[in-house]
Amino acid sequence: MSESPDPGAAETPTAKRILIGPPLSSEQADEHLLRKRMALPIFASDALSSVAYAPQELVMILLVGGLAMLSVSPWVAGAVVVVLVVVVLSYRQLIKAYPSGGGDYEVARVNLGEIPGVVVASALLVDYVLTVAVSVASGIDNVISALPELNPWRVELAVGCVVLIILVNLRGVREASVAFAIPTYLFIGSVAVMIVVGLVRGMLGDPPVASSAAYSVPAEELSQAALVLLVLRAFSSGCSALTGVEAVSNGVPAFRRPKVRNAQATLTAMGGIAILLFSGLTLLALLSGVHYAENPCDLVGFDCRGAVQPSLMAQVAAATFGAGSAPFFVVQAATACVLLLAANTAFNGFPLLGSVLAHDGYAPKALSTRGDRLVYSNGMIVLGAIATVVLVVYQAKLTNLIQLYIIGVFVSFSLGQVGMIRHWLRELRRLRGLSPVTRANPPARRDVLEARKGFVINAVGAALTVLVLAVVTVTKFTHGAWLVFLAIPVLSLLMIGVHRYYRDVEHEIRADDATHFGAAGDVALILVNRLQKPVIKAVDYALAAHHDTTIAVHVSVAKDDTAALEEAWKEHGMPVPLVIIDSPYRTYSGPVAAFIARYRAAHGPSIVTVYLPQYIVGHWWENLLHNRRARRLAHQLMLVHGVSISLVPWLLDSSELVYGRRSRPYPGQQRAGEPVDAGLAQRMAEKSSLER
Amino acid sequence: MSESPDPGAAETPTAKRILIGPPLSSEQADEHLLRKRMALPIFASDALSSVAYAPQELVMILLVGGLAMLSVSPWVAGAVVVVLVVVVLSYRQLIKAYPSGGGDYEVARVNLGEIPGVVVASALLVDYVLTVAVSVASGIDNVISALPELNPWRVELAVGCVVLIILVNLRGVREASVAFAIPTYLFIGSVAVMIVVGLVRGMLGDPPVASSAAYSVPAEELSQAALVLLVLRAFSSGCSALTGVEAVSNGVPAFRRPKVRNAQATLTAMGGIAILLFSGLTLLALLSGVHYAENPCDLVGFDCRGAVQPSLMAQVAAATFGAGSAPFFVVQAATACVLLLAANTAFNGFPLLGSVLAHDGYAPKALSTRGDRLVYSNGMIVLGAIATVVLVVYQAKLTNLIQLYIIGVFVSFSLGQVGMIRHWLRELRRLRGLSPVTRANPPARRDVLEARKGFVINAVGAALTVLVLAVVTVTKFTHGAWLVFLAIPVLSLLMIGVHRYYRDVEHEIRADDATHFGAAGDVALILVNRLQKPVIKAVDYALAAHHDTTIAVHVSVAKDDTAALEEAWKEHGMPVPLVIIDSPYRTYSGPVAAFIARYRAAHGPSIVTVYLPQYIVGHWWENLLHNRRARRLAHQLMLVHGVSISLVPWLLDSSELVYGRRSRPYPGQQRAGEPVDAGLAQRMAEKSSLER
Repeated sequence: MSESPDPGAAETPTAKRILIGPPLSSEQADEHLLRKRMALPIFASDALSSVAYAPQELVMILLVGGLAMLSVSPWVAGAVVVVLVVVVLSYRQLIKAYPSGGGDYEVARVNLGEIPGVVVASALLVDYVLTVAVSVASGIDNVISALPELNPWRVELAVGCVVLIILVNLRGVREASVAFAIPTYLFIGSVAVMIVVGLVRGMLGDPPVASSAAYSVPAEELSQAALVLLVLRAFSSGCSALTGVEAVSNGVPAFRRPKVRNAQATLTAMGGIAILLFSGLTLLALLSGVHYAENPCDLVGFDCRGAVQPSLMAQVAAATFGAGSAPFFVVQAATACVLLLAANTAFNGFPLLGSVLAHDGYAPKALSTRGDRLVYSNGMIVLGAIATVVLVVYQAKLTNLIQLYIIGVFVSFSLGQVGMIRHWLRELRRLRGLSPVTRANPPARRDVLEARKGFVINAVGAALTVLVLAVVTVTKFTHGAWLVFLAIPVLSLLMIGVHRYYRDVEHEIRADDATHFGAAGDVALILVNRLQKPVIKAVDYALAAHHDTTIAVHVSVAKDDTAALEEAWKEHGMPVPLVIIDSPYRTYSGPVAAFIARYRAAHGPSIVTVYLPQYIVGHWWENLLHNRRARRLAHQLMLVHGVSISLVPWLLDSSELVYGRRSRPYPGQQRAGEPVDAGLAQRMAEKSSLER
Repeated sequence: MSESPDPGAAETPTAKRILIGPPLSSEQADEHLLRKRMALPIFASDALSSVAYAPQELVMILLVGGLAMLSVSPWVAGAVVVVLVVVVLSYRQLIKAYPSGGGDYEVARVNLGEIPGVVVASALLVDYVLTVAVSVASGIDNVISALPELNPWRVELAVGCVVLIILVNLRGVREASVAFAIPTYLFIGSVAVMIVVGLVRGMLGDPPVASSAAYSVPAEELSQAALVLLVLRAFSSGCSALTGVEAVSNGVPAFRRPKVRNAQATLTAMGGIAILLFSGLTLLALLSGVHYAENPCDLVGFDCRGAVQPSLMAQVAAATFGAGSAPFFVVQAATACVLLLAANTAFNGFPLLGSVLAHDGYAPKALSTRGDRLVYSNGMIVLGAIATVVLVVYQAKLTNLIQLYIIGVFVSFSLGQVGMIRHWLRELRRLRGLSPVTRANPPARRDVLEARKGFVINAVGAALTVLVLAVVTVTKFTHGAWLVFLAIPVLSLLMIGVHRYYRDVEHEIRADDATHFGAAGDVALILVNRLQKPVIKAVDYALAAHHDTTIAVHVSVAKDDTAALEEAWKEHGMPVPLVIIDSPYRTYSGPVAAFIARYRAAHGPSIVTVYLPQYIVGHWWENLLHNRRARRLAHQLMLVHGVSISLVPWLLDSSELVYGRRSRPYPGQQRAGEPVDAGLAQRMAEKSSLER
């Protein structure tokens, strides 16, 4: 027999509902899939927005070696573009082969084994957190470049942004997409216009000139080796433009059908736009002579007390359009928005990956529960909380945060690509074993060609990403990245531990035929403190269940109270016997457990049901006014062999208490302590609802 | 039948036990009463230690008017001494009339009514918090005077001290007394010696000279009115020497018999010592020419960058004994200790008052539960937490904190004394009505004389304390004390609200004869997710209780899981029918509640017992790995009319899981999911023990 209840139906609006919207049915899941033009801003905002800080960090590091080093920057930027092209091509293969949203994690786990899979997952989780932190920090940087008076509230602004992003995301994917599409497209458009205007002005012989072009830096004497290291560090920082490429591969299930084709197209579009913006902006920065230093006081001519060093983006925009002009503010606003929203990419990636991990038993199951807006709410909250901590600890300073960044991404890139090599090798072996590959068997031949192409692409991808990972590690390790190298193994070990734990629990609770039903005796104990209506209700319920024996038990901590209870018990003619247990140490669970042991010694083994009246209150603060003794007692008695706890609720109708009206006589059919009307129960259930 | 179980017996030592010691039986309460020589340091450390900062704040404020104003200080100090004498005499009366430990609160409530009583309680609670904050801040000041390199860790040191005091107090009153007696007596002794040495040196023509005697302050032109206000402000600050006098009246029950006599003697001794130290130290400060400024940079000649201005106590000690000498360090160490420990007075007063308030229904009941060391642990923890917040917010700065201080004490003094006037008037009326007062009736005559004496003393006390309260209010209100005038009414309203709440709850749950026992039908629902051992155990327990009807219920959120369950149910031949309920919104409680409603519509009204298997885990972190669905479900279903919840515990034996050993076969008598040995249950109960 199968029955279907009413859906959620009429609800009173609550803060939760207003903030995140009405609940959605499981059947609505398909409607929430993403079109390409909506998927692009969601999954690409990270990769695109990194254009706003990658050139700045690149220039900043080269300038440590003096102004002359700037001439190297086109070569460094070119190298970054090459890596970007290879990675995008590699991921097109990966999406096709593993479209389930597991991305690098799935590839590594399937092809390389449990430990590489878990390492990839840890690396990605770490980098999602850093994506949020870096993007928000850079976004706030750009806001402050336009409005320097906000500088003292840097950290508070950053945390506020994270909270806002969490709320937007808890509303669900599609709404998020609409909210985020406009700034992303505005960013792409305005930066593209800026690049074109700037370059055209340059060609017409009137190049834009940055305000910092007049500043110089004292040239340091650097050895040949130090110069090489500097160029490699600049390259590492420039590679932050690559983060976010993997987000699409983790998000394939969120695309509309045909999922793979759409995801690949989105990835390619994203890669192309990122390359254009990154190289255009780097060129324009060189053309306009932006001099950007990690410590602004290094700049000869810069007023290093008080003044805020504008971001590279702000300087280029000011040089191209004029500081304070309308287009300047459009570029700055779009940059700030897209950077703040880039964090959103992580809010899609992290919870999706978390749910995959939870499904595989590597993360707490709570991460695989969809919230009532069909999104993985718990993962979003965890990500937001950790990112907030990171932002506060690093005081939302971009230059410090970027040192930790992209290591995770490249760990995951590398292992994913190596996994893909194994995948193609296995595929080729399978095809070879399947049937003779000849001109006469074109499908198989096509598959083999496909697999060979994939193998080559991913082999090149693997070689390049491993190389970049090595460069990034060498250049960033001592600048703070060691923390990431600590976090990844710790997280991996945790995941393996969680997996072992779930496996062992599963084994322990597997059903077998060992249990024999209803064998032992059966006794009900009703715990009584004073004789009040909640106790009377508990006695009533215990009697209704027809236990073999029903006894009321009082733990005596004060003699006067005990005497008063015994008298009241007689006076009200209670229909069950009352047992008094002394408790010199004012504890409850110990004496009750001892009583149960003595009872069993006298009457043979029995299942004991302990009835505990429990107050149900309407407001959280009321809990502060009631001893939590019943709850603690329940928790402790459940540890005693053969005991189950029956909680008999007593609803304190505080909505009446607060306004001074006393409890009114309950209607005939109603028992004492029950909700008077369904509406009240509904409101209270709504308040305490954490379930969905 | 009355039975007594084994006391706590053999326990594994835990962090809690090591920190606060073994539990104490209720019968040991008497042994923990205080001798006079132990009560003095406990209840007097506040009043005595204030000697360390009262003269300093007095001198500091007078110096705002220039060096010439210092000549007024003996008069101001004299006024403070007069107030102190009157207050001590008044409290001797109060202790005798109300020895129950309710102090001013009880006097005001009995004689003036509920609202004054509650206002007194609020004022005292506020001042207890400030006592902790001011004493700790001043203690740290003195530590830093001796060891200036600790200056950057001021707030951290202060918070550390509060935590230490909480731990010492959680061990119980007598241990606290021993730990605190030595520094208090050392402080009294060393300061007394210092005063004698200093004054003798002065008489011998070789007066000590403070290092700051050479500094001067530019004399400001102040109007006559401003000068008067300055003197009044100095008096207000000097009156901080009076705080703590009320502590004895709140602590009478902690004294050994004869309680009243012993408490009075302690109070008098404390007053005498406080007067001697306060006036001696003020004299010595004048003699040695200590110039102490709120802002040290006001002092002409003071190096206001870097250098820490030593406390007045430190300057006097250095002048008398020589800076860096052994006696200097003894005085500084004793001062710092006694100041830090003065906070201890509040840790005796606040929890005692809290328990009295809880007993009267004005504060949460949790405050009246004695911990397992017989102290009111919850009150101590609340006090410590609030004091920590205050210290952090005010950055442990004495001069800011002292502005909030002593208002609460004088509100309580004033209302207490006014209450005592009413008390004596009523007493006189009663005596007059009782029998003719003649020479032939000496007992009644003695009582009348006694009452008249009391009336006069308390009337003078009331007049003086109301006057001082007015002065303190006028001089401190705009310097931060407005916060206290906000906190006291807010706390009072809260207490009145709590009282109303308890009264209404008590009325609502009072036993009457309306309940009819065991009338309706009885059905058991067993909630089933997957067919695993915990579910089998729940079915077993439900069958053992012989309900009229027993049904297993499955809420279906994924069709595959449901099909698998139905098959397993048949395969294992489960002895109860299985009902499937659809849940398109992935909720559990709503569909179950709807099912209950439909069941009742079909089968008539029934009491429903919902069986929920619940995991019990051995470590807190395991909770993170299990959905808390069962707990939330229990909470929500309890809101449904006529439903009780039966929690069937399943113990996950993680101590075995962690080390990789799998669940072993349970011995014959043992049912699945029960603790294998009592030792494990004991250890787990100990871990989760919050009960006492």
